[in-house]
This record gives sequence, structure tokens and C-alpha cells, in this order.
Amino acid sequence: MAASATVQFMSLRAFWFLPLLLILLESAGGADAAKRKPLTMADVLAASQAADWEALDPENTLYLELASGRVVIELAPNFAPHHVTNVKALAREHYYDGLAIVRAQDNYVVQLADPNAEKPELARKIQHAKRTLPPEFDRAVNPKLPFTRLPDDDVYAPQVGFSGGFPVARDSKSGKMWLIHCYGMVGAGRDAPADSGGGTELYVVIGHAPRHLDRNVTLLGRVVLGIELLSALPRGTGALGFYEKPEQRVTIKAIRVAADLPLTERTDLQVLRTDTPLFRDLIESRRNRREDWFKFQAGHIEICNVPIPVRKGQ
Amino acid sequence: MAASATVQFMSLRAFWFLPLLLILLESAGGADAAKRKPLTMADVLAASQAADWEALDPENTLYLELASGRVVIELAPNFAPHHVTNVKALAREHYYDGLAIVRAQDNYVVQLADPNAEKPELARKIQHAKRTLPPEFDRAVNPKLPFTRLPDDDVYAPQVGFSGGFPVARDSKSGKMWLIHCYGMVGAGRDAPADSGGGTELYVVIGHAPRHLDRNVTLLGRVVLGIELLSALPRGTGALGFYEKPEQRVTIKAIRVAADLPLTERTDLQVLRTDTPLFRDLIESRRNRREDWFKFQAGHIEICNVPIPVRKGQ
Repeated sequence: MAASATVQFMSLRAFWFLPLLLILLESAGGADAAKRKPLTMADVLAASQAADWEALDPENTLYLELASGRVVIELAPNFAPHHVTNVKALAREHYYDGLAIVRAQDNYVVQLADPNAEKPELARKIQHAKRTLPPEFDRAVNPKLPFTRLPDDDVYAPQVGFSGGFPVARDSKSGKMWLIHCYGMVGAGRDAPADSGGGTELYVVIGHAPRHLDRNVTLLGRVVLGIELLSALPRGTGALGFYEKPEQRVTIKAIRVAADLPLTERTDLQVLRTDTPLFRDLIESRRNRREDWFKFQAGHIEICNVPIPVRKGQ
Repeated sequence: MAASATVQFMSLRAFWFLPLLLILLESAGGADAAKRKPLTMADVLAASQAADWEALDPENTLYLELASGRVVIELAPNFAPHHVTNVKALAREHYYDGLAIVRAQDNYVVQLADPNAEKPELARKIQHAKRTLPPEFDRAVNPKLPFTRLPDDDVYAPQVGFSGGFPVARDSKSGKMWLIHCYGMVGAGRDAPADSGGGTELYVVIGHAPRHLDRNVTLLGRVVLGIELLSALPRGTGALGFYEKPEQRVTIKAIRVAADLPLTERTDLQVLRTDTPLFRDLIESRRNRREDWFKFQAGHIEICNVPIPVRKGQ
């Protein structure tokens, strides 16, 4: 599959210009030409080298298996190490298998949980993992973690940018950084107490970034493939989008750690690195859209509108 | 139906506190009590009076009729007068009836169009309306139009706020104002030339606000009810989310102007006015969430995260 075909968030009609752009790029000398003219995202990706991409780490990749297919989730151990460890432990003891997506709230989240969580005699038991954990809403800024700062401001945070393929915010005053609730981000649902989550309930953002949740819930990963298996689910008609009838729920066949599957059963994916000059070019190509279709250049970009391209392994 | 049940964008678990809050509010003396303590959105809505709501104008309301139900669209004649007039003319000559949703691109838009638009002999004919119009990407600021400015900045525009129930941006330097591509906004698709749209193809935003489209396409309305009939459609697997097989398309039974239907067949809706002190309270209730669940107050809000509540007529 060509890289362009797996890139998410392709823009209105922009795709049609891709073949022409690739031809122009080739005939003008590839990456050198790219430096001489304003770039489209197609230009940027066409100029990418193998080193601009990074394979998913199978030990930090989850497969959420539904009857409709596989959702691939990249975990974020740099930001929620204890939650990531716990979710993997839950997956490895098959805690999730047979549970269900119990909620799909339009322009907000889908959520998976144990439908019997409130019934002690029926609730799924946990063997080795933990049911709850202290929150990991933010973490201390670590200068060793890469941070590609967005050139634009943000409504919610002093600084925003990307670290290891994830959208993050930073505050130099508090010395904290945290993951951002962009589309496709995965978090650990919780009840009212801050330490009542732990990964037994997971939610995925399927709407406009609910940034008011930042630092209120532990984010632990991002859907990198198959989001449409979640975002196109029928919305629940109960309060908060909960399904009102058990038969409306979508069964979780399994959640697996990719490393536990034989190579032939894994989904071989690469994510564009976010700590490269090429990724800065990509950001610029989205701040000012150079495709012919655009009559007005925004000149800015909001953090959750920056795509993080994913492609199949080469 | 209670007002609270029709409010969109209810937040994670916040709903559970609603009965308790209403009891507290009542016992403490209603609106007076609301002034004395930080408000939740439930508080604000509970304190709303009839004058805080405005019935939809049937002459500027479209019903998009699908087999799955009705999508109600409020038109924006203050911002796209010629497009609104043309879309109503197209609806009244039954141009849309039998056309289809041809595209559903994840985290972006669904789009309706004539599937045979490219085949002259099969393409739907237009009798009295126009096929294309000059763009209405923005308009001159008119001091007579209400503008409730958001207290927060915006990544894309000098000023943002609300006018007549719509999210808008303003630029005092150019003296222009324009509608914003928030979730649920409806626009007139176009080809590469700026004047190639006119309402024969309509798109609806079903993902994170694609603000780079602002001032690049004519927005003409907003979905106020039934967005989930569009946002939960299976995504198209072709480029840009186009459905690859004709049978995947979703047929448009009809688009009607509400005024043309007998009263008994209309959907009686009221939208919260956005030019009132109460709406300012609502904005504040979302900038700083006072529900117990929240541990951290964002202190800001991004324009497309402000809900514009809708309720059934009282």
C-alpha cells in the first residue's frame, strides 16, 4: 500500500493533486526541490526517508479486537507508565476479553467497560493487575524527552507540541507536561475520586478535542489504525451515550499486546517521527495549505489538527 | 422532554449530579442562589427563562430526511444570504430528493451530492435555482448583528464568539466576520474555483473542527438535531472517504424547508440565545467546570467546545 493511502485526515479534494505533485517533485530533483517551494503534505511525505518513520514497539502496542476488525493502539509509557503497565497486565490476564463497548456519545467518546461492573457477583475478577491506580494526569518535564514545539499558541496550555508521536502540552512554570485529548486519544475512565481509574474502563476520543479533560483523566495511548471501527458506532441513546439495551453493546473479542502475537498475526505499522526536520515541514504544510484548492492560508494550526501519519511497514 | 435531556455535549459522568444540583438550586432560592456560587451548565439551564430561548425560524430551517430519521439544520441567512436562498430554492424544486450521501470521511465531513453529477445525461437538472454562486466566505462586520465575544483567544482568528446561535470569527483590521467550521456546521462543497459551489453539494463537519477550511468554503448553517444520523455513518473506503460502491451510499429521501410542512409535521425546537447574560454564564460554566468530577479547571475554552443547547418547544 502506498504511504499516501494510509495517511489519515487527508483533506478535502487535496488527494487529487497527489499524482501531479509527485511527478513535479521527481522531475525537479526530489528533496532539494522541496526546499525551494512551499510544500504540501504530499510533498513532505514523498520526500520522507526510512529514518523519518518509526515502527511501533510491539511491547507498547495493543490490539483491540472487534467482530468488525482490529483497532491498533500505541501506548504512551513515557506519560502514563503505571497505567500502561497495568493495562498490559489486564490484557495479559484476559481481563478485557468478552467485555463490551458500553457507551458511544456523539462528538465525545466511546468507552469500553465491564457491563457488570456494578454487580459484585457478576463483575469480572482481576487476578494480578490492579483495579485502580494513583492518577498520572501529568508528569515532570524531562529534557531527555523530545519535544517539537508547535509555532502557534494554544487556548488551553502555555506550550503545545509533539513528543514521541503524541500531542503534549507543557508548562514551564509548574515544570509539568501532559498528553492532550485530541481525536483518537485513549484514556482510563474513572469515577469521582482522582485515583479511581486504572485501565479497567478505557475511552477513546471520537469528537472535537475535549480539552477540558486534560489533566483530569489519565491518557495512556492513541489509536493509530482502525478508529473508524469506533467512531462510526451507533450512538447510545441513554444519558452520556450509554447503550440502553445489552444487545446494543459491542463485544470486545480480546485486547492483546502485539508482542504476544506471532509476527504473522501482527499489524506492521510505522508512525512518522515527530522529532525530525521533516515533521516540522509537515506542520508548516498544514499551517499554510499550498494545494490549489485553498484560497486562504490559515497561517496557524491548532495542535489537534496536525496529523501524525501512519503507514504500513515497508 | 426535559431540557437537560436534549442538551448536547453533556460531559463525562457530569449528568449524574444533575438531580442533586437541581434540588440544591431549588432549596437555595433558584436564580439568586445561582449568582452566589460557581455555576455548572445544569445550573445555568435550570435558571433559564423562556426569553433565553428562541424558536427556530421555519423559513430558515431545513429538514434533511433519511430512512433513519430527520436531521434538522438551522440556516444562517446573516452570513450566507445568497447560498441560503439558493439551497431553499433547490429544496423547493426537489433537487435533492433521491440524491445521496456519497462521502463519509472519518474525523472530517459527510457530504451529499448528485452521484451522477459528472455524467451530463444523468445529472440532476436544475429548474429555477442556481448551480453555482459567488462565494460567501466572509462578510463585512455589521454592528447590528449581535456578537458575544469569547473571553479566550483563538488559534486562527483575532476574535471569536457567537452571533445568532452560530460560532463566528471577526477581524477588526479587515472589518470582516465569518462562520467557523465547528462540529455540525454545514457548508456548500465546491471544486477548485472559489465560485464553483452553490449548495448542490452540502457537507457537514463530523470531526475535530477543520478550521483551515474557514474562509475557504461557504458555511450556511448548523445541524441542531440528528447529527448522529450523519456522524455514525460507516466511513467510505475510497479516497477522501467517498463510498466506493453505489449501494453504500445513503439516499436522501428529501430536503424540505420547515415552513413548507404543516405544523404537525415540523420538529418544534428552541435554541438557547447566544446574546444574553445567561449564555455568558453558560460559557463560564464550561471554562471552569464545577462538577465534582473535575479536579482541574481549564480556565479557558476553545470556541468549538462551547455547546449551543437545543431543546424541544415548551
